[in-house]
Amino acid sequence: MGNLNEKLEHLKSEIDGRIQEILSKPNPQTLYEPMRYILRAGGKRLRPILLLLSCKAVGGDPTKCLDAAVAVEMLHNFTLIHDDVMDQDDTRRGQETIHKKWDVNVAILSGDGLVALSYRYLMSCNHPRIAEIGRNFSDALLELCEGQALDKEFENRWDVTLDDYFTMIRKKTAVLIALCTQIGAIFGNGAPEQIQNLHAYGLNMGMAFQIQDDLLDIVADEKTLGKDWGSDIVQRKKTFLLIHALEAGTPADAKAIHTIFNQKNITHADVRRVQEIFERTGTLKAAQKLVQKHVDTAREHLATLPDSDGKADLVAFLDLVSHRNS
Amino acid sequence: MGNLNEKLEHLKSEIDGRIQEILSKPNPQTLYEPMRYILRAGGKRLRPILLLLSCKAVGGDPTKCLDAAVAVEMLHNFTLIHDDVMDQDDTRRGQETIHKKWDVNVAILSGDGLVALSYRYLMSCNHPRIAEIGRNFSDALLELCEGQALDKEFENRWDVTLDDYFTMIRKKTAVLIALCTQIGAIFGNGAPEQIQNLHAYGLNMGMAFQIQDDLLDIVADEKTLGKDWGSDIVQRKKTFLLIHALEAGTPADAKAIHTIFNQKNITHADVRRVQEIFERTGTLKAAQKLVQKHVDTAREHLATLPDSDGKADLVAFLDLVSHRNS
Repeated sequence: MGNLNEKLEHLKSEIDGRIQEILSKPNPQTLYEPMRYILRAGGKRLRPILLLLSCKAVGGDPTKCLDAAVAVEMLHNFTLIHDDVMDQDDTRRGQETIHKKWDVNVAILSGDGLVALSYRYLMSCNHPRIAEIGRNFSDALLELCEGQALDKEFENRWDVTLDDYFTMIRKKTAVLIALCTQIGAIFGNGAPEQIQNLHAYGLNMGMAFQIQDDLLDIVADEKTLGKDWGSDIVQRKKTFLLIHALEAGTPADAKAIHTIFNQKNITHADVRRVQEIFERTGTLKAAQKLVQKHVDTAREHLATLPDSDGKADLVAFLDLVSHRNS
Repeated sequence: MGNLNEKLEHLKSEIDGRIQEILSKPNPQTLYEPMRYILRAGGKRLRPILLLLSCKAVGGDPTKCLDAAVAVEMLHNFTLIHDDVMDQDDTRRGQETIHKKWDVNVAILSGDGLVALSYRYLMSCNHPRIAEIGRNFSDALLELCEGQALDKEFENRWDVTLDDYFTMIRKKTAVLIALCTQIGAIFGNGAPEQIQNLHAYGLNMGMAFQIQDDLLDIVADEKTLGKDWGSDIVQRKKTFLLIHALEAGTPADAKAIHTIFNQKNITHADVRRVQEIFERTGTLKAAQKLVQKHVDTAREHLATLPDSDGKADLVAFLDLVSHRNS
């Protein structure tokens, strides 16, 4: 693992360096300053790293698609900015969100600007299949929007099933990670079945990642997490935990959850009560099991690739995801 | 002119038909319904038509880049949705704006979705220079964001010069029109100097179009315009009219404008007073003259192209812009 962590640090600093360069433009300040603010706030650079490792895993040269790696990181940060506005989140990566530090207008516009920059960098990569890559990128962006729309719609619905939830997180989270592993493999000139398997690897990792995220919202330390504890509950999100608890719990549990969600304000004590229901109904365990299932499926898809350094890194990466605490 | 109008109607219905097809996706409703709402609300389809005519003017086949024409129309509508949120405009094309009819979240997200669709359609066009076209498209989108950022920054500044204003409208309006004429020429396989001249034609038309827009805000009929009369003044916009009037007027005029702009609410009577200053300082005439100057420059750039039907249409198009009343 030490070896992987070292490699990841190296890739991360490569990407960070490139992002610094890009964001040197000073004006208009209200456009570029918030972009710098969010991109310099840290972040694990999970998506660009996965793109580069996937390129390597099919025998490609990752230095040839560094701009694409920067592009997916920018696209991801765009979604964070706009989602934070829609979710009225005040904190992100331990600092104020953009709409909180500036205002909603600045957040809308700096998000839009990141999308533009993102495509600009993607289109700078020289590859014969660049139009197809551009279509994949756009399909993923549209699905991200669909996922966020579903997420918001679910807040006002009590009939959300686990299947609805899986559709939503696939679009909102998994599709972007799958895009990274897919286009990494295309840039690396992988064979069609390698591209497919890496796409499936990314999709399953993304599902695992999001269910883990739902879990962390309720089991992680607020400081480690860099955002408010229990914020999914406060925002009345229909997470895996919530839907599972409604299905697995007693009618009294469901009633308690309904009552809390119908209150005007949800307090820390309320979050604590919902957390107890999650524990008692075996919901936390079910979530952990599902994370593991997706991690295993992702690993199986990798197994079809020929052995290589890149493949080994992607396998090891799965453990990082299932053991992450922030 | 009758002939051009007929041709434009034909192109417009071709584009409208294609947009209808695209938007048949029903769910998530909160994402696709607002997209349909704004795209079906009319609009002159100026930008896609210019793209197709530019393709034709260099001897290309416009039916091969219909998807690109749809893409620029979608990109334009995306800017309208997000700009309306930022400007808190309630009316657009005679109907409620999206954030007013739904809410800000729906407006943010449906705008984002239109960007995704826009790139998706652009990238569907089969052309050897598609990566370059994608870069031009992204550069234009980034400049649109810069233009909007400057526009908002200017609202809080009293030192905006006419040069600052020209930079802002070039980015906010002219660059997108220039993108249309430029990539239309690239899709049509125009020679490098033809592409350059069509780009310059679009840039000048765009400048003329925006200065005309500033004028219409104050001289046009509200019903024809489809938006509030004098809304630029109510929103304290630093338009050509305002900056020119401050420079050309007496100290008393400047003081009157400052007083009105510093009020919490700007009434219709205030708008009327500012309008009187515009008239008395020769500002309205100066604006008309500048519109004509850009129209003439645009025409000169066209003159370098070989004579053709497409070229004649683009020449005639300039008159439509300088004589428009909405």
